[in-house]
Amino acid sequence: MSFQIPPSALGVILAAFLPVAALAAPSLGLPESIVVDVAPPPGSFPIVTQERAAPLCYDAADWPGVVRAVGDLQADIERVTARKPAATAEHPGAPVAVIIGTLGKSAAIDALVASGKLDASDLRGKWESFVITTLAQPLPGVERALVIAGSDKRGTIYGIYELSEQLGVSPWYWWADVPPKKHTEAYILPGRFASGEPVVRYRGIFLNDERPCLTTWTKEKFGGLNSKFYTKVFELLLRLRGNYLWPAMWDNAFNEDDPLNPKLADEYGIVMGTSHHEPLDRSQKEWTHNRQKYGNAEWNYGTNKEGLTQFWADGLKRNGKYENILTMGMRGDGDMAMPDAGGLAANKKLLEQIITDQRALIAQHLNPDPTKVPQIWALFSEVQRYYDAGLRVPDDVTVLFADSNVGDLRRLPTTEELRQRSGGFGIYYHIDMHGGPFAYQWINTNPFWKISEQMTLAAEYGATRLWIVNVGDLKPLELPIEFFLRMAWNPGALNKDKIADYTRRWAEREFGPEHAAEISDVVARFTKYNGWRKPEVITPETFSTLQYYEADRVEAAWLEVVAKAEKLYAALPAEQRDAFYQLVLHPAKASATVAQINIWAGRNQLFAKQGRASTNAAADRVRELFRQDRSLTNYYNHQLAGGKWNHLMDQSHLGMHSWEPPVVDVMPSVAEVLLDDVSRVGVSIEGEVFTWPDHYGDAVLPTFDSFHPRRSCVDVFAVGSRPIEYTIRSAQPWIVLTKEETALKDQRYWVEIDWAKLPAGASNGEISVTGTSVPVVVKVVAKKASPEQLAAAKGCFASLDGPIAFAATAATRKTEVGGVRWDTVPDYGRLEAALAIYPVTTASILPPNPAPTLEYPVYLSRDGNYEVTLVVGPVMDFMPNRGMRLGVAFDDQPVQVLDLFAEQGGPPFANRLAGMQVSRDNARFLRSLHRLAAAGPHVLKISMVDPNIVVEKVIVESARRPTGPFAPRQLETYFGPPECLPFQ
Amino acid sequence: MSFQIPPSALGVILAAFLPVAALAAPSLGLPESIVVDVAPPPGSFPIVTQERAAPLCYDAADWPGVVRAVGDLQADIERVTARKPAATAEHPGAPVAVIIGTLGKSAAIDALVASGKLDASDLRGKWESFVITTLAQPLPGVERALVIAGSDKRGTIYGIYELSEQLGVSPWYWWADVPPKKHTEAYILPGRFASGEPVVRYRGIFLNDERPCLTTWTKEKFGGLNSKFYTKVFELLLRLRGNYLWPAMWDNAFNEDDPLNPKLADEYGIVMGTSHHEPLDRSQKEWTHNRQKYGNAEWNYGTNKEGLTQFWADGLKRNGKYENILTMGMRGDGDMAMPDAGGLAANKKLLEQIITDQRALIAQHLNPDPTKVPQIWALFSEVQRYYDAGLRVPDDVTVLFADSNVGDLRRLPTTEELRQRSGGFGIYYHIDMHGGPFAYQWINTNPFWKISEQMTLAAEYGATRLWIVNVGDLKPLELPIEFFLRMAWNPGALNKDKIADYTRRWAEREFGPEHAAEISDVVARFTKYNGWRKPEVITPETFSTLQYYEADRVEAAWLEVVAKAEKLYAALPAEQRDAFYQLVLHPAKASATVAQINIWAGRNQLFAKQGRASTNAAADRVRELFRQDRSLTNYYNHQLAGGKWNHLMDQSHLGMHSWEPPVVDVMPSVAEVLLDDVSRVGVSIEGEVFTWPDHYGDAVLPTFDSFHPRRSCVDVFAVGSRPIEYTIRSAQPWIVLTKEETALKDQRYWVEIDWAKLPAGASNGEISVTGTSVPVVVKVVAKKASPEQLAAAKGCFASLDGPIAFAATAATRKTEVGGVRWDTVPDYGRLEAALAIYPVTTASILPPNPAPTLEYPVYLSRDGNYEVTLVVGPVMDFMPNRGMRLGVAFDDQPVQVLDLFAEQGGPPFANRLAGMQVSRDNARFLRSLHRLAAAGPHVLKISMVDPNIVVEKVIVESARRPTGPFAPRQLETYFGPPECLPFQ
Repeated sequence: MSFQIPPSALGVILAAFLPVAALAAPSLGLPESIVVDVAPPPGSFPIVTQERAAPLCYDAADWPGVVRAVGDLQADIERVTARKPAATAEHPGAPVAVIIGTLGKSAAIDALVASGKLDASDLRGKWESFVITTLAQPLPGVERALVIAGSDKRGTIYGIYELSEQLGVSPWYWWADVPPKKHTEAYILPGRFASGEPVVRYRGIFLNDERPCLTTWTKEKFGGLNSKFYTKVFELLLRLRGNYLWPAMWDNAFNEDDPLNPKLADEYGIVMGTSHHEPLDRSQKEWTHNRQKYGNAEWNYGTNKEGLTQFWADGLKRNGKYENILTMGMRGDGDMAMPDAGGLAANKKLLEQIITDQRALIAQHLNPDPTKVPQIWALFSEVQRYYDAGLRVPDDVTVLFADSNVGDLRRLPTTEELRQRSGGFGIYYHIDMHGGPFAYQWINTNPFWKISEQMTLAAEYGATRLWIVNVGDLKPLELPIEFFLRMAWNPGALNKDKIADYTRRWAEREFGPEHAAEISDVVARFTKYNGWRKPEVITPETFSTLQYYEADRVEAAWLEVVAKAEKLYAALPAEQRDAFYQLVLHPAKASATVAQINIWAGRNQLFAKQGRASTNAAADRVRELFRQDRSLTNYYNHQLAGGKWNHLMDQSHLGMHSWEPPVVDVMPSVAEVLLDDVSRVGVSIEGEVFTWPDHYGDAVLPTFDSFHPRRSCVDVFAVGSRPIEYTIRSAQPWIVLTKEETALKDQRYWVEIDWAKLPAGASNGEISVTGTSVPVVVKVVAKKASPEQLAAAKGCFASLDGPIAFAATAATRKTEVGGVRWDTVPDYGRLEAALAIYPVTTASILPPNPAPTLEYPVYLSRDGNYEVTLVVGPVMDFMPNRGMRLGVAFDDQPVQVLDLFAEQGGPPFANRLAGMQVSRDNARFLRSLHRLAAAGPHVLKISMVDPNIVVEKVIVESARRPTGPFAPRQLETYFGPPECLPFQ
Repeated sequence: MSFQIPPSALGVILAAFLPVAALAAPSLGLPESIVVDVAPPPGSFPIVTQERAAPLCYDAADWPGVVRAVGDLQADIERVTARKPAATAEHPGAPVAVIIGTLGKSAAIDALVASGKLDASDLRGKWESFVITTLAQPLPGVERALVIAGSDKRGTIYGIYELSEQLGVSPWYWWADVPPKKHTEAYILPGRFASGEPVVRYRGIFLNDERPCLTTWTKEKFGGLNSKFYTKVFELLLRLRGNYLWPAMWDNAFNEDDPLNPKLADEYGIVMGTSHHEPLDRSQKEWTHNRQKYGNAEWNYGTNKEGLTQFWADGLKRNGKYENILTMGMRGDGDMAMPDAGGLAANKKLLEQIITDQRALIAQHLNPDPTKVPQIWALFSEVQRYYDAGLRVPDDVTVLFADSNVGDLRRLPTTEELRQRSGGFGIYYHIDMHGGPFAYQWINTNPFWKISEQMTLAAEYGATRLWIVNVGDLKPLELPIEFFLRMAWNPGALNKDKIADYTRRWAEREFGPEHAAEISDVVARFTKYNGWRKPEVITPETFSTLQYYEADRVEAAWLEVVAKAEKLYAALPAEQRDAFYQLVLHPAKASATVAQINIWAGRNQLFAKQGRASTNAAADRVRELFRQDRSLTNYYNHQLAGGKWNHLMDQSHLGMHSWEPPVVDVMPSVAEVLLDDVSRVGVSIEGEVFTWPDHYGDAVLPTFDSFHPRRSCVDVFAVGSRPIEYTIRSAQPWIVLTKEETALKDQRYWVEIDWAKLPAGASNGEISVTGTSVPVVVKVVAKKASPEQLAAAKGCFASLDGPIAFAATAATRKTEVGGVRWDTVPDYGRLEAALAIYPVTTASILPPNPAPTLEYPVYLSRDGNYEVTLVVGPVMDFMPNRGMRLGVAFDDQPVQVLDLFAEQGGPPFANRLAGMQVSRDNARFLRSLHRLAAAGPHVLKISMVDPNIVVEKVIVESARRPTGPFAPRQLETYFGPPECLPFQ
């Protein structure tokens, strides 16, 4: 484990994105910055100068959504420059103008193309593309124009919003109170800027799990989930180049709650769908509200086919005129599994019939050729079983694979499946969950590297027809929502190597260049730490209070990021603070507070077991942090932006005891003691829960190993209420004691070894504490390497005693086979970086075929049985007909091929026990046993068998227990032993 | 489970023990009461009259211990009558006198025997026997004498103390402040009262685990564990007819700490030993203090044979002149297992050599014939492995079997072993433990029925040479110490059927007849409840807060016994209150407090999960009870008897997290909530941890079954800080709601069914709660038996839905085979009584041989697979070469022979996982699966295979899971479903 984000990973500033002149602000859409505000180079187009603002010209016959977006651009220009341009469907009547229009819908654009002035090669027949360019003499009486031309409705709109963003209006100007940048002038650089087509055709979000936050907030601010609210969502989506929406459906019916909802969605240019279990554009609440009108009112195709058919037909008739994607199939009532129709075969048969009948309805009401109507079949939760069992829907239907609910893809298409399915494949992804394995609805817990790694797989394996992400209440998931939608536009632009730069550009766009590097560092850190384990499932036991100072180190990491965020908050101009608070400071500090609450509750439990008088102080600290958590919530709801976001932080997040969020936040339980009025001394040592002199066994510090000079500790504390007096001393000069006060005034003594004073081999010493009821002797064992051992261990990860751990990236040799290689995944997982195989779609390589291999020289001072544990990412077995395997071997021993899913008793997703654990840990553990016949240097080799396993960390230790289905799958502590470097 | 102690079991007053005249007080020694204080019948001997006290005559040549005890009698008579008799070694010089002496040591006694006036047939050659009788003209010049004649030193002493006790001086007059009864006169009834011989030759206690309590108390009161302290112990032991002592040895060396210790022990008449791991009369601390004088100072026979030999020889030389029993063999240093000599065979061989060498030392220093010197070999903990593996010591050595550390015998001799071993077998028993499976050192947790049941087995199986019991600090184990020693004298007098009477006689002796029945009831109850589970291992999870109202019922049972004890305390005369407090009120209330602390902590946890505003109030209740626990301790230490017992209640007992006692008492952890300033209503129901409307699934009450009319509940509570308003109503007239306030002002509604309003079969109804954020519907299902079902179920334990449970004693038929029978064990275990096979030494009977069988008619409304769970006592597999088996069958199906130890993976004691559980539960669970082809009446048959399994309860339920080594061995709740009676 390491809490240092390497500067190389985060601080990188790609020169290409540095402002060459004084660029207004980077965008996250185009790769190029096109706006400058001072010293425009020759040929720049003046949108706003000291004198005037160029008028915005559009065609009244263009899409209403385009015309509406022109209005947004007009407002955005005023927001930025305080000068409002004219917007006109007539001749601009000015020598410079902005001409905005859609190919085929705008006479001006069509004329420019016809005249050869505008190259339409990357517009004609393209999906959602735009070009921004400056043209001379575009119209009679106009000397120069900036042209924003779209291939279709959304192409033009995206072009408009690209300009807005580059001018300095964040897509989040309303949704996260990001203040528009202020410029007096603004110019567009000369040149031709083309968006190209998006990689993923449909890119959307799903508003879900909307009680308590979104429901209560919209009720207070909009009077419900009506069109006043939804147009805010539509606009945001378009500014983020999204095009697709599943509306909130817990207590809401999009089409019925406000009839303007679907109408305006279509006008804005949003493709509407219904969630994975709401067929044919009808929400579940529409059924709940109207079921009595349909047959026997049962949501059961076996008993109420006619009623359901009528219900669906009514929906198709109502919404058929809009741009929709139809959800096909059926689940049970209320997002539950369907009632059993008599086993898998019967269920499959029923579902096939349902889809056949639904297709007939489409043919009847929408299009005689149903293959022309976009349709999806979502394999959420148990539905994937039917697909796995061979159920297939017509090829034009997009099959929507889902993730594990915590962001790991369960399935991707095979080459064969891709070839066969004209409708292609999509992904239903989660960055918010109300359901198993556990709900996380509170805060942003999604590191970019997690989304990037998994969605890169989706893209590379070809699941690119549709991506939709469950975003809960929308806020506070601003960052991952944008990342997901940007990535859907162009996955390659947000691959593992581009995340750091993206984060920095995002920070610069929202807060300007001055603090962008630091802000992006804070964002990377708080999401990374939440990626270790989501706050909802941190408990007082998660981070070890006993071993490796793990809890202390996690707390320090969090405190550092909070301190940095608070310093930035203070340094930022007042108008940026609301945005910074909601996007950075609040999630950082609120997440840190939850970690701290649990860490202090863990200390309270430990101190109680040890009988420390400080037990109660630790409990008070938990209470204080619990109140701090509440006050952060209160600030967010009541003070932030004048109460604009009241209720959006209503989500409970402490005290989860099932998959559901807790009814209210519950403080972790704390123990208390009643202190006796005595002076009584207790002694505890690193790694032990016990207190001496009470404990029966010997007090023995973990053995010191000269290959890893480190410090251990002895704590001396009061057990009663009176001050204590005692003497501590080491019996040997090579045992160095250093006094340190801990937070709770219990006395800590650091123990280090003065190795120069020791001979090679094992030495035994003692630290004595007197003043206790019986003198306490703490035993010290130190092992020092001999000259022969030093020579043999050179360059190796070396151990005389205890486990060795090292970062996977510390491999001293990486072999590449036919272009298939182990490559660094920056920032991924628990350490600074990880390693994975690229290209990610590489075919499996089984021994004895040569495979890309990582080599780690290891020096072990004893022969015997060793266990190797690989800490790897939480990948699922998403590819059928192959494993999820790595090869592990020492030296020239045969390669052991280990499959992450070899021990699963059933379908991985159904194997709840293992599934829950990996979901919480965000890591898997792969163990192997090895017999080493001799002490000395060895080489540990990790070789690819299947791609897509991200290797984070390696632990080598004496084998203590058999592996097997009943062996514990956990590390002894959350992160395991700290990593070391090769001995030099 | 039932908390009612049946009057028949506890309130029985055997007429034989009722005072015929006005008897002074019953004794627990002789079966007859021999003292009256008023209206003496003709021929009674006047010890003290209004005029004078009869002088006490002894022979100066008698044992010094006898002469010393005469002094105690003199003092006791004065304590009772305020008149001090003369004590003289001369002629009494009075017409009536008490003549006290030992056969062969008292000239007067020998003369009476020689003259034929005193019948010595039950004295001569007898062990520790006495006769008390009135003789006319025993000596010249003496008209009548009361003669107390002993067969040997302790025989005479026991006779003296028998008289003391019957006069009204409790053996505990000093050790528990029991005030002597006050009489003006005292007479001995005419007749001859003979003690007979004890069944067990050596009857002793082991002072152990003496820090913090005994060590600190003796230091304050005596200046250490010196002879001032030990003579108090010797006297107590003799008054209780004990004769054997293992002295405290944690930080103490009996022989070295005070050289008077061994000398006075011998003079008093106490046979000294050393604990199970301290060979040849030398304590471990003698070794610790002196090891440097002996060889290489290592406690290792392999490396320091000469040093150890010298060490032991020095001890034999020092203590050889006293009456001792020598501990043989060796364990490791400090009561740990011996260092491994290279596997079991090598360890065995080494131990054999050690014992051979030790015998040689005995021959050299004590007796050329070592078989004449009493020796024991203790099979404590791992040592039994050597015995099991065939290691045998010479036949004259007494083999000491041990219990499981929690009172269950691990081994008893076979007939063959008994025949072969002239030294016989003994038992090392625990009523206090510092060690595995967990320490219990705080309070009296030992019900008489537990000691009686197990020690009856010891007696019947012939392990009667020596019984020694680990008593920790001695106090507060007054009751089980006396019970154990009394039982050692005559096990048959304290068998299962005589416990209730014994308890009542004990209460009458200590507190007089007026409240004896009530006091004995309180004692029976608090020890019984502690016998359910010792306070140290009760946790907030132990008793279900969700199911069967289990925690509520346990708390109510405890509160009832505390109320009764407090009422008695108030009613008793002031001078009896100190004794009553320490013997009855304190253990009852302190144990109840621990149970309550945990029950309230359990409620706190449940309320927190449910989001109740009352969570914090429940936490406060835990704190209040935690302070109550401390104030009980403080009263015991500082106020009771003016501080006489200060420190004897210092033992920590709350917060155990390993086998060790906690460093300090730790309050169970409690959760807290911060209440929102809202009016928010939550609803919970019986059996569910969830709160509605928040919870996703339906709220369904446990199904009602007309065979077991019962009530269920719906709780409505505030989630926020403001008062709540809501409406609750049942939708059907057959659902009867009754409002009840709970302790925390959360509103409870009892739900009952008006069965008369229902048709036969299943009916569905609803209770609705409005005023919640979303209306809550609680579903109610009630199943009513049809007339046919009623007819078929008559006389049966019947169920339409859910499990059936019944007391084992509710068998409607018990078959007896050749005098072997199922017999009631009153008060045993979790219910009012249990059943076991008698005689207990019966040989096993395997099917198809007819065996004593219990029959239970059972009516089940469905066919299918059923699981039968038998709740039985925590017996160990103490008899080699047979199982610990029962037979279970339905109807005429083949009998399934089930062995309690079939699933143990290794030696039972080493199988810690199972061992820990049974030790905590004080029960085992035996499960079997049965296929019933038809609904309707069946007969469940439980038949003996091996004796010694005590059957408490039977549960029949639909089979839900496979049994097997990994199946949970626990009941779903601590006591499982409540028992029912046959349907009539």
